[in-house]
Amino acid sequence: MLVVMQAGASPEQISRVIDAIKSLDLTPHPLPGATRTAIGITGNTGAVDSRQLEVLEGVKECIRVTKPYKLASREMHPADSVVDLPQGRIGPGTFTIVAGPCSVENESMVMKTAEFLVANGVKFLRAGAFKPRTSPYAFQGMGLEGLKILKKAREKTGIGIVSELMDTEHAAAMEEMVDVIQIGTRNMQNFSLLKRVSQTRKPVLLKRGMSATLEEWLMAAEYVMAGGNYQVILCERGVRTFSDHSRNTLDLSVVPPARSLSHLPIFVDPSHGTGKRAYVPAMSLAALAAGADGLLVEAHPEPDKALSDGAQSLDFKGLQALLASLRLMAPLLGRKMG
Amino acid sequence: MLVVMQAGASPEQISRVIDAIKSLDLTPHPLPGATRTAIGITGNTGAVDSRQLEVLEGVKECIRVTKPYKLASREMHPADSVVDLPQGRIGPGTFTIVAGPCSVENESMVMKTAEFLVANGVKFLRAGAFKPRTSPYAFQGMGLEGLKILKKAREKTGIGIVSELMDTEHAAAMEEMVDVIQIGTRNMQNFSLLKRVSQTRKPVLLKRGMSATLEEWLMAAEYVMAGGNYQVILCERGVRTFSDHSRNTLDLSVVPPARSLSHLPIFVDPSHGTGKRAYVPAMSLAALAAGADGLLVEAHPEPDKALSDGAQSLDFKGLQALLASLRLMAPLLGRKMG
Amino acid sequence: MLVVMQAGASPEQISRVIDAIKSLDLTPHPLPGATRTAIGITGNTGAVDSRQLEVLEGVKECIRVTKPYKLASREMHPADSVVDLPQGRIGPGTFTIVAGPCSVENESMVMKTAEFLVANGVKFLRAGAFKPRTSPYAFQGMGLEGLKILKKAREKTGIGIVSELMDTEHAAAMEEMVDVIQIGTRNMQNFSLLKRVSQTRKPVLLKRGMSATLEEWLMAAEYVMAGGNYQVILCERGVRTFSDHSRNTLDLSVVPPARSLSHLPIFVDPSHGTGKRAYVPAMSLAALAAGADGLLVEAHPEPDKALSDGAQSLDFKGLQALLASLRLMAPLLGRKMG
Amino acid sequence: MLVVMQAGASPEQISRVIDAIKSLDLTPHPLPGATRTAIGITGNTGAVDSRQLEVLEGVKECIRVTKPYKLASREMHPADSVVDLPQGRIGPGTFTIVAGPCSVENESMVMKTAEFLVANGVKFLRAGAFKPRTSPYAFQGMGLEGLKILKKAREKTGIGIVSELMDTEHAAAMEEMVDVIQIGTRNMQNFSLLKRVSQTRKPVLLKRGMSATLEEWLMAAEYVMAGGNYQVILCERGVRTFSDHSRNTLDLSVVPPARSLSHLPIFVDPSHGTGKRAYVPAMSLAALAAGADGLLVEAHPEPDKALSDGAQSLDFKGLQALLASLRLMAPLLGRKMG
Repeated sequence: MLVVMQAGASPEQISRVIDAIKSLDLTPHPLPGATRTAIGITGNTGAVDSRQLEVLEGVKECIRVTKPYKLASREMHPADSVVDLPQGRIGPGTFTIVAGPCSVENESMVMKTAEFLVANGVKFLRAGAFKPRTSPYAFQGMGLEGLKILKKAREKTGIGIVSELMDTEHAAAMEEMVDVIQIGTRNMQNFSLLKRVSQTRKPVLLKRGMSATLEEWLMAAEYVMAGGNYQVILCERGVRTFSDHSRNTLDLSVVPPARSLSHLPIFVDPSHGTGKRAYVPAMSLAALAAGADGLLVEAHPEPDKALSDGAQSLDFKGLQALLASLRLMAPLLGRKMG
Repeated sequence: MLVVMQAGASPEQISRVIDAIKSLDLTPHPLPGATRTAIGITGNTGAVDSRQLEVLEGVKECIRVTKPYKLASREMHPADSVVDLPQGRIGPGTFTIVAGPCSVENESMVMKTAEFLVANGVKFLRAGAFKPRTSPYAFQGMGLEGLKILKKAREKTGIGIVSELMDTEHAAAMEEMVDVIQIGTRNMQNFSLLKRVSQTRKPVLLKRGMSATLEEWLMAAEYVMAGGNYQVILCERGVRTFSDHSRNTLDLSVVPPARSLSHLPIFVDPSHGTGKRAYVPAMSLAALAAGADGLLVEAHPEPDKALSDGAQSLDFKGLQALLASLRLMAPLLGRKMG
Repeated sequence: MLVVMQAGASPEQISRVIDAIKSLDLTPHPLPGATRTAIGITGNTGAVDSRQLEVLEGVKECIRVTKPYKLASREMHPADSVVDLPQGRIGPGTFTIVAGPCSVENESMVMKTAEFLVANGVKFLRAGAFKPRTSPYAFQGMGLEGLKILKKAREKTGIGIVSELMDTEHAAAMEEMVDVIQIGTRNMQNFSLLKRVSQTRKPVLLKRGMSATLEEWLMAAEYVMAGGNYQVILCERGVRTFSDHSRNTLDLSVVPPARSLSHLPIFVDPSHGTGKRAYVPAMSLAALAAGADGLLVEAHPEPDKALSDGAQSLDFKGLQALLASLRLMAPLLGRKMG
Repeated sequence: MLVVMQAGASPEQISRVIDAIKSLDLTPHPLPGATRTAIGITGNTGAVDSRQLEVLEGVKECIRVTKPYKLASREMHPADSVVDLPQGRIGPGTFTIVAGPCSVENESMVMKTAEFLVANGVKFLRAGAFKPRTSPYAFQGMGLEGLKILKKAREKTGIGIVSELMDTEHAAAMEEMVDVIQIGTRNMQNFSLLKRVSQTRKPVLLKRGMSATLEEWLMAAEYVMAGGNYQVILCERGVRTFSDHSRNTLDLSVVPPARSLSHLPIFVDPSHGTGKRAYVPAMSLAALAAGADGLLVEAHPEPDKALSDGAQSLDFKGLQALLASLRLMAPLLGRKMG
């Protein structure tokens, strides 16, 4: 259920509604918007008579939400969400680039990459310290050492850090050292992990599960939001189908329905989506045209020497060329490159 | 196997190579290019010693093609193919719009649509006279009457006609009355039908099968080309996956690999791909950005009264808005709207 | 809509109901059952007041069928359908084996196979005269010559012949020479072909399309039945998924829902389903256990020399072993081997 | 790499080979078999000269394993694995039933179920204390309280307990209270969790991920085995495809290839696989026929009152009927019901 406050409702009025919801043994989720505040309600609302809340001062109306996800739904929050970060805002009117290597390999390559990105106007660096690998015998990432290197790059260049969290054990360290916590495709329904990141103050970039429907994906976002962390960024990264022309089937067609059903920003990862460097630029432009809010794109100083996923990484020259094309196209679509 | 002629090879030299191939009980397929001619060879080439052909005058080299498709492969024809039609050329440097209703419903709506399209710079009309319908009890199209209406629209406005052929029985009538013969998704591996259209002089728009891999799709194109009809246009229209946010999963990610493996033009059908009008404009722009050569898009004077697929049809105003966006974006991607 | 007659309704009463249906511009489909007759009605039944029919003598009730398929639905025909053939009945209480090579290769191997099958109690031979091949350069079958060889085998041994029809052109020849006409997976939605076989008196074995839902499959059966041919046998042969451990994903799980929603017999083809000889026996036993009515299984005198699909063919010894296991298991499941 | 010892190799000889492997900075995994011991080697074996090991006393041969999984591969361990539990052995020659409710709801229903199962010869009870639910608002299981109830049922009836572990946090409690630790489909590639259970002495039942290939599944098993826990049971539970006739597509066709590529026992869960009670018995019999080693089947005293997944639970009478059918069929397939 959703309580929509009047445009001019006072903080005290909002506060009283929140108390009233709590007194019904339900959980209020205040969702401030540009013109008015809405308050989502989770818990068993089946038995609640909405008139109890509608009579309170400052309340415009009560709406029963019919989707199984509530906090993530556009019904509940009609305006596009914004995720504010020290390096810039993510969301409406912007197109944000997050670039970097698949994994942290050593300090020098991370520094080199961070400096290159900053010099080229890219505000966020992605790199994995903990790597989910199909084989137990493959390189599993540098772990905490890797996180420290990322932190150093942030301190030196000011670049925002996006990195994947694989388990609750490392959540606190991650929380301290990165700007955006990434939940990988294999953990989209690792509900214990989702509950843990719902407790952090850092935005969460939630990759779509390899065979997740849009509803399941939004339900996973709902897990994070229901715990109180409303800063969720969706990220399409390719789904699993019969199709074998690329590593996964990058599902750009999910962008318009996701934007229609949810207010959350949505990114696209064309690198994992295609698995092949040569296809990344075309799919990046297509992601922008399809309405995505940003890209997660792999770039590596020397892709052919990468410890993981080199085949899908752009080199620096390739990334520069892509950025140039995006910069030309973004204004036509009402976006400012971020 | 492929024989590549020297840039300055004379018609006589080419002719002698063709004769030599025939004398080996193989079939030559001359493929003239901008700078040089190549000659594809089909048949059992396993036992052929390529030196027999390489010693002929005017021959640059012989290449064994390793893909199961040959005539459709870029290895065999490195330059992009062009399909020339009275209304304009389809292929490199252009972005061609084919628009119109799902099915021919009556003469007045077809005329209205044709005139609207011509007035808005659209050179091709799509409309089905024969309709493949999942249910035997659904409207099956107007049949030959429908074709006659399309022919009349062509005569009156000069617009090019694209329409679906469902069986060999109507191939001759179709051949006479339309500019481009469409093979539908359910018939992509109707090999008898493919062989029939390989005998026509009309270009073939070949929709991807609902669960066809790129290789199978190119093999279907090969069926048409092996019969001597080299004018094939591929058309992605959504594939079948677990995903349920749209009618099909429009696989834009197939565009870059298709362009890399084949020289054939590739179109995208965002209407069947998404099944929902609201998602069509975003996916159309994304198709252009992904590198497609054109669109097949449903438009109807009154979508809500359409006999079939109204939910995915744009109305005329919606189509005009989409055309305006495409015209802004096309030049940035090196394309001229056609 | 379905008119259910009383158990003791006379032929005259049934006849009068049929006339009444026709007078409403609808098409009656009498469906005689063990205890009573039902009459399916197709056409636009939306405006029909069922009381017009319910008042007729001998009518028990009128039921509006809610599924998009009617004649194929169990609602309309609660008892399992039986397909009667000179060689034996297919349907409830039986488990029918149809075995043989992928394609007719020459007379001697077909004769050898037919004799082997008859000697081992198998009543139906499958073999393709027309072969749908992904590549235009692959062996396309012996065509009419192949059909004649099959006819000769039938004349000599009495074995029933099951063979695939690929186009309307060869329908008449097929009709004359085989006992069961097979529609292949790639033609499940070749509606022109379905309409043609709806006009034949031969039973149709309808393979499931590679990515067909159960509803689409039953709708394809409905095309055949709506034309007046009620003798349809469904055949599961593997669907297309992400899974790569076998050639297709043999979907045995479709058997119970198909039996629940439809009265038509259902076969399983474990050879195409798995694509690998070693997996065929286990999946054959599983098909019987899952409730299938029969098997379509590839067997070849010398699988390693087969012109097509040898890797999935059992040799004669392998088939004998499988038959022995099936014969042990069938009685436990209330089936008699046929 | 795999070192195969001679049939009569002594413990000292085995021990010396193990030491030799360690001295090469590699990890030995002794795999005792019925007639001989093999020793798997993990680590970077690329540079190892196998002759160094082959010359040791008692060594029969060294084999380079080409699959990406080693410990899970049949190449490495040709005989079927056995998982020994106090309640009975799982593996070759047996067909083991694990039955019970989706989740622990209260003590009385668990006791009732355990007693019913024991009285009917079923040795293992399945029930979830921690439940992975798509919605954060759905019942998440009784947690530790639930585990205690299961422990009590075990103490009272001797029944073996199978229950799902969702995170590393509860691993120790789970280890203490259950006989087999289940890893759910959504956690099949939760590598941190797999590493944790690789450290326990309890067998692990590893459900196939919703869109996992067989190779990825065996790689997940490899994670558990590489950490030293060789007692892994695979469990097919339905995969995600376009097919909508059941909740998931139960992929029985994976059983023969899994048995061919791996020595691990494989179970089937027809309840989650189909999502519908009516289809469970047929698919259970088919699983046995396909070669599975056991079933995980939902049964509930009052399915229609279940807190979760009641629609796919058998009631006690239904389970008894299924057990009776399985008992008839198992001996024909060389299995003893367990």
